[in-house]
Amino acid sequence: MDFSSFCTSLGTSFLIFFVLMILFAILQSKPGNNVVYYPNRILKGLEPFEGGVKTRNPFSWIKEAFSSSEQDIIAVSGVDTAVYFVFQSTVFSILVICGIILLPVLLPIAITAAGGKKTQTTSKGTFNELDQLSMGNITAKSTRLWAFFIACYWVSLVSLFLLWKAYKHVTWLRSEAFKTPDLKPEQFAIVVRDIPPVPEGQTRKEQVDSYFRAIYPETFYRSMIITDNKKVNKIWEELEGFKKKLIRAETVFADSKTTAKPEGTRPTNKTGWLGLIGKKVDSIEYYNEKINELVAKLESEQKITLKEKQQNAAIIFFSNRVVAASAAQSLHAQTVDKWSVFGAPEPCQLLWPNLKIKYFEREVRQLEGIPTESHVARAAAGKYFYFTVLNVFIGVTLGGTLFKTFKQIQNKPKDIVPVLAASLPGNATFFLTFVALKFFVGYGLELSRLVPLIIFHLKRKYVCKTEAEVKEAWAPGDLSYATRIPSDMLIVTIVLCYSVIAPLIIPFGALYFGLGWLVLRNQALKVYVPAYESYGRMWPHINNRILASLILYQITMFGYFGVQKFYYAPLLIPLPILSLLFGFVCAKRFYPSFENQALEVAAAEVKEVPNMELIFRSFIPPSLSSEKIDDDQFEDARSEVSRQTSFV
Amino acid sequence: MDFSSFCTSLGTSFLIFFVLMILFAILQSKPGNNVVYYPNRILKGLEPFEGGVKTRNPFSWIKEAFSSSEQDIIAVSGVDTAVYFVFQSTVFSILVICGIILLPVLLPIAITAAGGKKTQTTSKGTFNELDQLSMGNITAKSTRLWAFFIACYWVSLVSLFLLWKAYKHVTWLRSEAFKTPDLKPEQFAIVVRDIPPVPEGQTRKEQVDSYFRAIYPETFYRSMIITDNKKVNKIWEELEGFKKKLIRAETVFADSKTTAKPEGTRPTNKTGWLGLIGKKVDSIEYYNEKINELVAKLESEQKITLKEKQQNAAIIFFSNRVVAASAAQSLHAQTVDKWSVFGAPEPCQLLWPNLKIKYFEREVRQLEGIPTESHVARAAAGKYFYFTVLNVFIGVTLGGTLFKTFKQIQNKPKDIVPVLAASLPGNATFFLTFVALKFFVGYGLELSRLVPLIIFHLKRKYVCKTEAEVKEAWAPGDLSYATRIPSDMLIVTIVLCYSVIAPLIIPFGALYFGLGWLVLRNQALKVYVPAYESYGRMWPHINNRILASLILYQITMFGYFGVQKFYYAPLLIPLPILSLLFGFVCAKRFYPSFENQALEVAAAEVKEVPNMELIFRSFIPPSLSSEKIDDDQFEDARSEVSRQTSFV
Repeated sequence: MDFSSFCTSLGTSFLIFFVLMILFAILQSKPGNNVVYYPNRILKGLEPFEGGVKTRNPFSWIKEAFSSSEQDIIAVSGVDTAVYFVFQSTVFSILVICGIILLPVLLPIAITAAGGKKTQTTSKGTFNELDQLSMGNITAKSTRLWAFFIACYWVSLVSLFLLWKAYKHVTWLRSEAFKTPDLKPEQFAIVVRDIPPVPEGQTRKEQVDSYFRAIYPETFYRSMIITDNKKVNKIWEELEGFKKKLIRAETVFADSKTTAKPEGTRPTNKTGWLGLIGKKVDSIEYYNEKINELVAKLESEQKITLKEKQQNAAIIFFSNRVVAASAAQSLHAQTVDKWSVFGAPEPCQLLWPNLKIKYFEREVRQLEGIPTESHVARAAAGKYFYFTVLNVFIGVTLGGTLFKTFKQIQNKPKDIVPVLAASLPGNATFFLTFVALKFFVGYGLELSRLVPLIIFHLKRKYVCKTEAEVKEAWAPGDLSYATRIPSDMLIVTIVLCYSVIAPLIIPFGALYFGLGWLVLRNQALKVYVPAYESYGRMWPHINNRILASLILYQITMFGYFGVQKFYYAPLLIPLPILSLLFGFVCAKRFYPSFENQALEVAAAEVKEVPNMELIFRSFIPPSLSSEKIDDDQFEDARSEVSRQTSFV
Repeated sequence: MDFSSFCTSLGTSFLIFFVLMILFAILQSKPGNNVVYYPNRILKGLEPFEGGVKTRNPFSWIKEAFSSSEQDIIAVSGVDTAVYFVFQSTVFSILVICGIILLPVLLPIAITAAGGKKTQTTSKGTFNELDQLSMGNITAKSTRLWAFFIACYWVSLVSLFLLWKAYKHVTWLRSEAFKTPDLKPEQFAIVVRDIPPVPEGQTRKEQVDSYFRAIYPETFYRSMIITDNKKVNKIWEELEGFKKKLIRAETVFADSKTTAKPEGTRPTNKTGWLGLIGKKVDSIEYYNEKINELVAKLESEQKITLKEKQQNAAIIFFSNRVVAASAAQSLHAQTVDKWSVFGAPEPCQLLWPNLKIKYFEREVRQLEGIPTESHVARAAAGKYFYFTVLNVFIGVTLGGTLFKTFKQIQNKPKDIVPVLAASLPGNATFFLTFVALKFFVGYGLELSRLVPLIIFHLKRKYVCKTEAEVKEAWAPGDLSYATRIPSDMLIVTIVLCYSVIAPLIIPFGALYFGLGWLVLRNQALKVYVPAYESYGRMWPHINNRILASLILYQITMFGYFGVQKFYYAPLLIPLPILSLLFGFVCAKRFYPSFENQALEVAAAEVKEVPNMELIFRSFIPPSLSSEKIDDDQFEDARSEVSRQTSFV
């Protein structure tokens, strides 16, 4: 790639971004698009925009994003989102602080170097301008390499310092969130798995209740036995489907009552496969019939489920936050494969089908036994991160020379560091363009929401008949960390690895995270609705992955200094050791409070006396809750009210 | 070593054992030696022997040892001792079960092998008889090697099976011990370290009390702040020394009042260095004076210590066992380097000076910050084990060829396995003799207690003047696991490693552990007094070290089969993997209940309402407790009685 095509590529990306910005400014001002650009606010029952339609100018969203505080974000979108912004602003700060020093120092040193005979190239020889601005322009063994050497230390130390601050801040955010006096049902409950077989003459409920009542005579409230809901869920989903279809048929019928044909046309459908074959029936009657049928079926299946499909797991409710927090961290039985506990997650996050999996099976299966949604997201993000770093970064870097070097690496595996280091500079231009494309086009599309907008309008016009269907069409979804963070992390890896070799990449990286912060701030405030709240539990993973990138950078720099025949390269060895030590210290110091809840936090005062009945009910899955099912029936899978509640 | 000298060595060892047994039978029947042979019973206030002096025959101790149950051992000597016997009987069972199969099968196979041209030797060519009974007699590539191959699996599987049973049994012993209704002060207390600096306007006591009262409003009883007792301990020891000297002087004076000289001779001493130089004074007066001086000094130092030498650690007392057990396992502060807790050990085990060491310093220093005596013993045993295995076993094995093979190993480190395997057979005779010497002479001396007996009689005759001094002279000490277990473990390693190569070693190993069990059973019942009780916390370490020996055996066997050119040797690779997996599963399944106390165990009923004041007092170190110091003075370093106690 030569200089002009680099500029063309950059210009095109920027043009696309500019067009998308203009489109956003126009489209978001149309009230008909409010559900696409302000769904979060609409779902919360707020007005889409505060100051009235007229005062909105195309850039007011920037002002709004900047003026929003971390507390606003937590209020609107939860701690997880706030932690995501901590991640973005941390990386942004790292890059800005590095750039302020590296750009004015390294660029002049590189450009004034004896560029006569190039020893290295950052653009495969076609892009002279970038070559002159990079470490490749320095002749081997030059004393100028000392500047780059010091820059390596600067980048590492700045990163570690800001990561430490961020970890501290996230820990604080987490503890503040737990300390709020609002009642969180999950703070009063623990999940117990691996319950031993029911003893002769006892029910599962009696077994669980007597076990926990013996240990917590005063604070045990009730238990809810986990059941196998596969069948009842299926019936419930079928029922919900028919309910939707009924509303749709009724809407179609009502819409067909025009002045020309006041009696309307009763909709019909075929009962067979996909409604395409089989007997033709009156839809409203057919669906009503089906619903009645399924309601009866659901009720009987609910009874069967609660009575006969009890599993070896349960949710235990306590009337005290501190006891629940302490119980979640304590060993209950002598062997860990019996009565093993963990703190309950939000009710909606709990994956009931995974709870019955036994201890050693869980250890072996790893992913299949994960008990919560957020844990699944974290595990997926981890896999995706290692996949992108290996494939995109190392893959592209070694790409050209891969087959040539493969044999070499196979023979001497430790050669991978110098090989990677030697191949890095050649791909600087590629990654510069890659980062620019990512933020200009990626964030342009993100902000303008062109795709969701088009899909929404198409659906509304051709598919949706009822209110509920329209609402479903514009449902915004959540920020989806599982894929967003790994793709940000790829940029972190690229920018860190090139930060010293080709410092020109730093402003691009800073722009990526700066623009990302701005655009997503808007999206978090107005668009996305978080699916769950894990109180920033993904931070330790983010921290570790930034560290992994940093270590990769330090090792490749060590290799590259070797390629440059800089004899003091071994002085870089303390850096990866320092990073590993940092990771170890973080894991020791901060991680426990992400895994367990600190008791001093749980001991903070609550606003009101907890309504244990409501807390208990919030954990009942929708397929098992029904207005018709009275308490007595549910009793089978849950305990009687504890002594405390019945006598006090 | 040839056959006759092997027999001579074995015969001599046995003769020594026989003589020591006779000596024991004679000496132990003399009432004057009771304090050497029955100190445990005497200290417990029991009669040395139940049936009267006359019925004692020289072998009655064998009957007594066999008829004693595990419960007897726990009652007399505690769970730690019982766990030591579990170790001995487990190894004994492994060896017996292996020997029953291996000896009748492998010996005939070895002896009938084509012994024409020896390829290997187990005795460096001088001991033909043993050569014929070992794997060295098998020609390379012979199909007879399959029998030895199967023996490898048999030994491994028997070991793992019995280790699993033993771990389960020890876990059960531990939980039963915790479940006893007797009050154990340590079950009501936790130790908290890394207390943050005292906030302005609060005392340390107020800080600690308010922190824990907020978290445990109902069950927090009191706190005891750890103080720096260095100076007060020194004064107290000095005082105790003078007290002893005073009694000695008074005894000497009383003894000097003979009928010939009814007024006696008042003892004198010199005040200078070692009582050899300086002014001559009347001892009784001088010591009385000194004691009065030191009592006053101690009292003032106690006050200073309690007020001004408070450290950043404390013992927290709870009025409930379950709460204390749960608190010991729970994270209290957001970061682990503040308010970190662990379950209190027995009062006498707590190492006060180590408690003030800060979190990260502890992590770095490892040994210097260990909080309990039993932990120190475990750490020492670990070091000693690796030292003996490396030095004695590998050292002796490679000894002869070490310098020759050193260069080879240096160049190709993975060659250590075949080198070790090739050197093993040559040392079989040495280790056979070593094991025999260890048990005949070692256990002979152990049982006869010749050395303590001689020392006691010498001391009583020439040194001891007072009752207390005599008592000190026969104080039996404890079983001292820290050195005993590693030396047993060396035998385990040797016998396992040779079990298939030279199966003749198995009966020697079985005799070592059988005889050891018998002799130490006697010693545990009658002699040793345990210094502390850790409820078998050393078991996970013992288990892991037996496993380490097993893996060493499996790897050397793999190497030796290679030396024998047995092409199916790689089929042995599953064995070390299985052993590692076993260790991993044990660590996951059993270890947590050794680190923490299971709540279901702590929830077992207690006999009586705990007397919290007594529990609290049991943790006051002797140098700080004094009849003269009244409660008010001690208040400075401990909290006021909690609300619960004061108002209920």
